[in-house]
Amino acid sequence: MNEKTEKIYLLGLDFGTLSARALLLDVRDGTEVATAVYEYPHGILSGPVGAESAYQHPRDYEEALRVTVAEVLKRAGASPASVLGIGLDFTASTVLPVDTEGRPLCYREEFAQDFEALCKLWKHHGATAEADLITEVARREGEEWLSVFGGKVSCEWMMPKLLEVARRSPAVFAATARYLEAGDYLVWQMTGVESHNTCMAGYKGLWCKKSGFPKNEFWAKVDPVLADVIGTRVSPHVIPSGSFAGTVSAEGARKFGLCEGTPVAAPVIDAHAALPSAGIVEAGRLMLILGTSACHIVLDETARPVPGICGYVEDGIVPGFTSYEAGQTSMGDTYAWFVENAVPAAYVREAEERGESVFALLDRKASALRVGESGVLALDFFNGNRTPYADYSLKGMLIGMTLATRPEEIYRALIEATAFGTRRILELYRENGIGIGEILASGGIAKKNPFLMQVYADVCGMPIRVMESSEAAARGSCLLAALGAGCFPSAKEAAKVLGDRVYATYVPHEENTRAYDGLYEEYVRLGEYFAKENGVMRRLGDVAR
Amino acid sequence: MNEKTEKIYLLGLDFGTLSARALLLDVRDGTEVATAVYEYPHGILSGPVGAESAYQHPRDYEEALRVTVAEVLKRAGASPASVLGIGLDFTASTVLPVDTEGRPLCYREEFAQDFEALCKLWKHHGATAEADLITEVARREGEEWLSVFGGKVSCEWMMPKLLEVARRSPAVFAATARYLEAGDYLVWQMTGVESHNTCMAGYKGLWCKKSGFPKNEFWAKVDPVLADVIGTRVSPHVIPSGSFAGTVSAEGARKFGLCEGTPVAAPVIDAHAALPSAGIVEAGRLMLILGTSACHIVLDETARPVPGICGYVEDGIVPGFTSYEAGQTSMGDTYAWFVENAVPAAYVREAEERGESVFALLDRKASALRVGESGVLALDFFNGNRTPYADYSLKGMLIGMTLATRPEEIYRALIEATAFGTRRILELYRENGIGIGEILASGGIAKKNPFLMQVYADVCGMPIRVMESSEAAARGSCLLAALGAGCFPSAKEAAKVLGDRVYATYVPHEENTRAYDGLYEEYVRLGEYFAKENGVMRRLGDVAR
Repeated sequence: MNEKTEKIYLLGLDFGTLSARALLLDVRDGTEVATAVYEYPHGILSGPVGAESAYQHPRDYEEALRVTVAEVLKRAGASPASVLGIGLDFTASTVLPVDTEGRPLCYREEFAQDFEALCKLWKHHGATAEADLITEVARREGEEWLSVFGGKVSCEWMMPKLLEVARRSPAVFAATARYLEAGDYLVWQMTGVESHNTCMAGYKGLWCKKSGFPKNEFWAKVDPVLADVIGTRVSPHVIPSGSFAGTVSAEGARKFGLCEGTPVAAPVIDAHAALPSAGIVEAGRLMLILGTSACHIVLDETARPVPGICGYVEDGIVPGFTSYEAGQTSMGDTYAWFVENAVPAAYVREAEERGESVFALLDRKASALRVGESGVLALDFFNGNRTPYADYSLKGMLIGMTLATRPEEIYRALIEATAFGTRRILELYRENGIGIGEILASGGIAKKNPFLMQVYADVCGMPIRVMESSEAAARGSCLLAALGAGCFPSAKEAAKVLGDRVYATYVPHEENTRAYDGLYEEYVRLGEYFAKENGVMRRLGDVAR
Repeated sequence: MNEKTEKIYLLGLDFGTLSARALLLDVRDGTEVATAVYEYPHGILSGPVGAESAYQHPRDYEEALRVTVAEVLKRAGASPASVLGIGLDFTASTVLPVDTEGRPLCYREEFAQDFEALCKLWKHHGATAEADLITEVARREGEEWLSVFGGKVSCEWMMPKLLEVARRSPAVFAATARYLEAGDYLVWQMTGVESHNTCMAGYKGLWCKKSGFPKNEFWAKVDPVLADVIGTRVSPHVIPSGSFAGTVSAEGARKFGLCEGTPVAAPVIDAHAALPSAGIVEAGRLMLILGTSACHIVLDETARPVPGICGYVEDGIVPGFTSYEAGQTSMGDTYAWFVENAVPAAYVREAEERGESVFALLDRKASALRVGESGVLALDFFNGNRTPYADYSLKGMLIGMTLATRPEEIYRALIEATAFGTRRILELYRENGIGIGEILASGGIAKKNPFLMQVYADVCGMPIRVMESSEAAARGSCLLAALGAGCFPSAKEAAKVLGDRVYATYVPHEENTRAYDGLYEEYVRLGEYFAKENGVMRRLGDVAR
């Protein structure tokens, strides 16, 4: 065996929406040594509720863990014993019901046909009524914690999803010993120890440091089936993300090809892992994570409600700091929708002839337009809206088309709309006293698309620094692994060695920023109208169902 | 010579937006004997004002007249002498400046580079400011005629276009002896006699039976350059459409291959010719003319203002009746825009593989959807809005898209939007006491697209009868030719012999009509919002310019 066994690697495991990635990082200098990717064979399963539903099969996660660990070690020529520590990030709230041993209920034959026994992906929107009910009861009862989570419970969060289980499938609910985040489930599988992490519990589970989860008296008022939920189906035990969760058990080592005894850190939400990855362990630096959807996370010394923001969690990512998260429910998804559904054959032919991608062709044509030249404006609510409305019944909109409107004009309007959505979030933070001194960006789109990043910089009126690593989440997990394993004296020391480099900086063109000011105002006015004055988007959705 | 010389043919000349058509109709039984088509070589010229401008070259019209007459006679094996009478329809307001002899100013070398010397096509939108100014002065001065024309002067009409000439090119304006409709210009060319027709003057020239054109005192207040416009650049002489205008002169015969002495009728607007074509010479039967844009014309015994309707003209088409016209600025144009700009390559491939057109494929997929299933709604203002807003700064809108929205859903929403626009017009007529007992439809789209016609019937909640002839305008012109030449004792008698047959009838499905009621309400609410409360469409257009 030529495998290196010196303990010099941090193993970061990143579980995304469609695939999982593993990364080995050299703890001595932060070098990315090897990566491995695994696509979930089941992908996203859509159930009986139709387009709003999004399920996954937990077997995919176990398989992904096993395959990527083997692969990444092989590529690095390293043995399991060379791993100093393991960190993990996962999409959230991606939740599943398990039995007392931590086995998913969907593995049981009796529940093989029951979607409620599966894992619900973060973007599963089947629990709208349940979320609205929880919000309503919390408002009625004057629950203090509601303001921590932006004043409104999202249908994407854990508790509405659990209540949906109870309502759609009493049998699955009855058999549920624990309902938990898939990230925590995998740590349990590796270590044999059950725990929850602050990041997921705080952002997606209505947990807060001061008062824990909402009390059972509250849940009883929401629905009697939840009268004892905290302490039974939902464990009250929450530990900080990145803290030591346990060591790999004999069974975990056997099952996933790991080395028994390796320390495992409590996980973090995938998007949030980008902060440690970029070396952000202090206040004032906004992390913009761009992918199918977008996240806007910033640390601050204070902990206070910001209306419309998804929530804030004390010690959510870095101990001693409150992490604030806002988000857009679709970003790259929207561009992909456009390319798949609305780009004419002539453009595809032109791209083929020039040997460029359709995206590259659209970028080229769209970048030749001046700000506002097309007269087309969009609302980026194609997958609902997270910040500031937390309203998933909102839909996309395009306005200003004429018979002369060209595809690249609509494409550009979609990009600008997502950029306006980001600017809206920046302003919301600032209006509420959360300082934003710098914008860092990560995600494949950020590195691949200079045109888009320039639009973002112009719209936001601030320079945007794009981070180097294409493995931001996995890299952040490696940093958590280092913290969990106690490799560095402090988070700051770890960030210094393991933090990522800047790949490119986009500086706003002042005249574009000025020109965008007016369009941004129109965007906000239309958003307010459709979110608050004319519920046509929700009604159209109701008719469609 | 084997050519038939017995006088049994009516010659109908139809000048559309991109081409002209000639039709020979047998006066004895209304049989369509032969047709000929000629595309304008210059097409539509766009000038210095950009996308809103649309010019044409009058040489194209003369050439079209010569070529199609020769061709249609040749196809019928007929001689010029066999033509009993000539009728003509033309797009309007399509206007040009000529000298005292009726020669277009653009034929002069000195104006060869001046767009203002060309013919302005009906859809030229360069005179918005001029139209607004005329409306404003008319309102201020309390001009009674304003209500006849729906309370607002359109930039598509003759007088704003003439004022635009004066402002953009004083030289052309100074040289203009007459400014007139291209239809009247061609009659002048054929007969050597100048006249205007009630239909074009009434609908597009601010002329009304009672008081003629607005007086020069009014025009002086609009702009001093117009202080003597009526009687100089605009002839005050107006005769009813379909009445005898003159006979073909020796020069006209030589130039266009006609027979000297053949009676020529005063022309009519192209869309309006569909009424006589369908045999409509009485009240209560709405003619729906579907093409690139759409027209909704109905006759009534009364003459009264209908707010939002383009205008009403006494004796406008049939003597003794007031004709009311409403319209949508784009219809087929919008579908064509969609097919050209927004249908993905995969759909085009699928259509090719199945050997069907892209339109047929979209119809097939869209017809499989239930009413409201897509959740997508559109506003059909892609080329502005004629009825009820007369606001050409309005733009298209699409709302309700999600990441699961497919192309056929947007296509169907566009079709439904134009149908909603038609229903809006029906309701406007009814609210104002103009009875609509029946809907007849003509135009290529009406015959070719059963899916679309069913949507229209469902949305309107009334049966729609599609007329047989594919040459509705030219056939209507033949009927005018018969009237002008005095072939029948009355319009009613002429309609009985020459009126077109019904090709197909679409009966509404009651459950669809009910389902559309709610969507129609949303359509109206959004239209009102963007027309009256939030001027974002106009502002986006201003920024784009």
